[in-house]
Amino acid sequence: MGKNLTKRSEDYSKWYNELVSKADLAENSAVRGCMVIKPYGYAIWEKMQAQLDKMFKETGHENAYFPLFIPKSYLSKEAAHVDGFAKECAVVTHYRLKNAEDGSGVIVDPEAKLEEELIVRPTSETIIWDTYRKWIQSYRDLPILVNQWANVVRWELRTRMFLRTSEFLWQEGHTAHETKEEAIKEAEQMMHVYAEFAETFMGVPVIKGVKTDSERFAGAVETYCIEALMQDGKALQAGTSHFLGQNFAKAFDVKYTTREGKQEHVWATSWGVSTRLMGALIMMHSDDNGLVLPPKLAPIQVVIVPIHKGEEQLDAISERVNPLVKELRSKGISVKFDDRDTYKPGWKFNEYELKGVPLRLAIGMRDMENNTYELARRDTLSKEVVSADGVVERIEGLLDEIQETIYKKAVDYRDSHITEVNNFDEFKELLETKGGFLSAHWDGTTATEDKIKELTKATIRCIPLNFKEENGVCVYSGKPSKQRVLFAKAY
Amino acid sequence: MGKNLTKRSEDYSKWYNELVSKADLAENSAVRGCMVIKPYGYAIWEKMQAQLDKMFKETGHENAYFPLFIPKSYLSKEAAHVDGFAKECAVVTHYRLKNAEDGSGVIVDPEAKLEEELIVRPTSETIIWDTYRKWIQSYRDLPILVNQWANVVRWELRTRMFLRTSEFLWQEGHTAHETKEEAIKEAEQMMHVYAEFAETFMGVPVIKGVKTDSERFAGAVETYCIEALMQDGKALQAGTSHFLGQNFAKAFDVKYTTREGKQEHVWATSWGVSTRLMGALIMMHSDDNGLVLPPKLAPIQVVIVPIHKGEEQLDAISERVNPLVKELRSKGISVKFDDRDTYKPGWKFNEYELKGVPLRLAIGMRDMENNTYELARRDTLSKEVVSADGVVERIEGLLDEIQETIYKKAVDYRDSHITEVNNFDEFKELLETKGGFLSAHWDGTTATEDKIKELTKATIRCIPLNFKEENGVCVYSGKPSKQRVLFAKAY
Repeated sequence: MGKNLTKRSEDYSKWYNELVSKADLAENSAVRGCMVIKPYGYAIWEKMQAQLDKMFKETGHENAYFPLFIPKSYLSKEAAHVDGFAKECAVVTHYRLKNAEDGSGVIVDPEAKLEEELIVRPTSETIIWDTYRKWIQSYRDLPILVNQWANVVRWELRTRMFLRTSEFLWQEGHTAHETKEEAIKEAEQMMHVYAEFAETFMGVPVIKGVKTDSERFAGAVETYCIEALMQDGKALQAGTSHFLGQNFAKAFDVKYTTREGKQEHVWATSWGVSTRLMGALIMMHSDDNGLVLPPKLAPIQVVIVPIHKGEEQLDAISERVNPLVKELRSKGISVKFDDRDTYKPGWKFNEYELKGVPLRLAIGMRDMENNTYELARRDTLSKEVVSADGVVERIEGLLDEIQETIYKKAVDYRDSHITEVNNFDEFKELLETKGGFLSAHWDGTTATEDKIKELTKATIRCIPLNFKEENGVCVYSGKPSKQRVLFAKAY
Repeated sequence: MGKNLTKRSEDYSKWYNELVSKADLAENSAVRGCMVIKPYGYAIWEKMQAQLDKMFKETGHENAYFPLFIPKSYLSKEAAHVDGFAKECAVVTHYRLKNAEDGSGVIVDPEAKLEEELIVRPTSETIIWDTYRKWIQSYRDLPILVNQWANVVRWELRTRMFLRTSEFLWQEGHTAHETKEEAIKEAEQMMHVYAEFAETFMGVPVIKGVKTDSERFAGAVETYCIEALMQDGKALQAGTSHFLGQNFAKAFDVKYTTREGKQEHVWATSWGVSTRLMGALIMMHSDDNGLVLPPKLAPIQVVIVPIHKGEEQLDAISERVNPLVKELRSKGISVKFDDRDTYKPGWKFNEYELKGVPLRLAIGMRDMENNTYELARRDTLSKEVVSADGVVERIEGLLDEIQETIYKKAVDYRDSHITEVNNFDEFKELLETKGGFLSAHWDGTTATEDKIKELTKATIRCIPLNFKEENGVCVYSGKPSKQRVLFAKAY
């Protein structure tokens, strides 16, 4: 197809990097580990944001904004939290530059040293709970249901565009509640919201579960997660929602007067998804010809390409196409009529295939005569000639069908890649040959989990919520186990 | 009215700070100069963002995202630029914390020092033009019309919520063009977009003009601006749009092949508005009773307060109010029915007055009998009893009327505070007694501008675009001048 894209079967990782670059989604910047999100990639992220934001507001949340910087001492007020984040912090130590006396350029002014260093937020629990102390006196002030859209920084050694970058964009919800039960319900609710978003909008099927001790968020009592499976058999954590207990309320002394007049610490949750979702979206559906996007998140849902010689033919085609564009837009369908004469039709076909535009209409002089369009579907690469009369209905129907088809395909792949495994040799072999989720018994200890990771690189992705109790023995230690968990290699 | 709000006439500055706090717009954080934007304040900012974003897209711009960090050396590639920003930079020098050996807590790990320090972006010209070099080869790649919504940091010594904070939220447009003319046209266009937004949506009349040499953006050839006048007679710069010439293209070596096959440096603009607009919005219309918001940017346009005893009465009222709420929402009007029983009606009246909700409907048992509502207008504090039958139309009409009324009021104030001044004694006296814009001749030198600033604290806000040439003598130096400029004390 002339895309010069490495095939997935040859080198999945290289395919991904090339796709991100060639489809104009993002590129590396001059700053280590920080990426530039290009307009086409950002347009997809904006669609994700808009839908998530709507879902957050429908579940009663409001947006707010908290500082980028966190005083160093705040980070260490919750013991587990600082252990989790201290190793990957960007630290601001000075607040001024000046000209070097030797004329060699600009240097950091040693006299402008901060009394206390500031950390660029890796996540905002600490600064937010310091603020909530001022907002919460009584049960009347609860619940607080706040979300923030922001950038965060975690200094990563190995980065990959969208999947792991030093700076990334995300949303972080931070809620405060009267009771433990209400906070747990909130954390579970947001896991369900994330799952619904992933499945209905991204077309990405997910497994809901809880994390083990070693994979839990630093400072959480319970971490709920949604886990997806990519085409190379590796798992990707797509969102997490944490029940924080009273850990941050205690660390920041946030108490409230209960309905009975007592003083109690507040119960908390936090939950987030990030531009990492872009990585999942890209890897889930795309193929060796480029990106495949679900219609619900595609910045351009339909592209129309004229095939003509000279301006007169283009004018005739435009006259037919312009009312169609208008009608499609009135139905909320995002459409682009690419009448640029700087590029040939073949180049455009290639370009929009690479960029995953779900539907392409082409129209040449024969179509003008026959009152038809050539309609091509990106997901199946199939083409059909359709009458211009029913084309709007056909497009509407196909957009729904594509959304459904790519989701089902992803579900089928996922379901055929969850394998029950009962001995460790089989575990190791399957991991190398087939990949995917291995459903296995585990003795519940971190020691066994660590050992399995050391030997196979597989981690426990989650303890699925829908798994039933079942007596068995740990796939590694042979000790008794009551439930299977899901192992996989992961992004 | 029981708001405990300092009166504007007593202490305008204190009134502003109290208002920001009591109306739940924002508060200071634990980090010097960084504020927390609270949900109600952020909801206003979201409405501003949504409208501006729409206007940017309608004028052909796309959004993208560039890194938070800028390598120190980048900042100094454009000479004027570094002089303008080096003195107020947050500098990242390290990327890890560790436990202190003496057990005293967490310290910066001295071994995790960056080879080159990173600056937290004060504005993104440098990192963006470094990126554009990769995006631009030919005239076919131009224009690039990109905007970014982001946080930026300028280390300010004296901060005030929204008006001047070390971290603030903004948008920054960065465009690249084939010709000088096209770039100037773009810079002018964005000034007009800002002016239209300020006047039509914020209800804030502005004067369009260009900055003098000393007030120009660091790195620009020309800075276009919109200037508003606050109720205390001080000016506020509400937005700027810069024609950057080829300065950044030269600093970052960004050339393109022209239509004639030559290599030329690219022409540039940048333009931005920030959360500072929140400060202008708050100060422009509000009064001693609290916030007054233009209906087009009010998160809640209509609040409905029930006046009742007991649940039975509330149920009856709700039965009447719920269909009204539904109808108003179907018309795109944002309405809140505050049926909380934890607060009394009087408390609620006070609260929504303080928060600037444009219209308040109250309904008690007598209104139930008479099929009426009591309708109160926030801007004029006037009340009327209206029939429930025509209430939707009345509300729609009033929202438009309020938007218009507060704008006209602001225009009247502004127009009556532009005074022509022809000698320096009068200049100094008027500045102290009446304030506002002083329209005066100026000899065009930075020396005179600096001297006037030193003597009076007034600066040249702009050289208005609609001022005609007029022969005169400089109000300070007596030297010949061909045009009046606008002086004012400013935020």
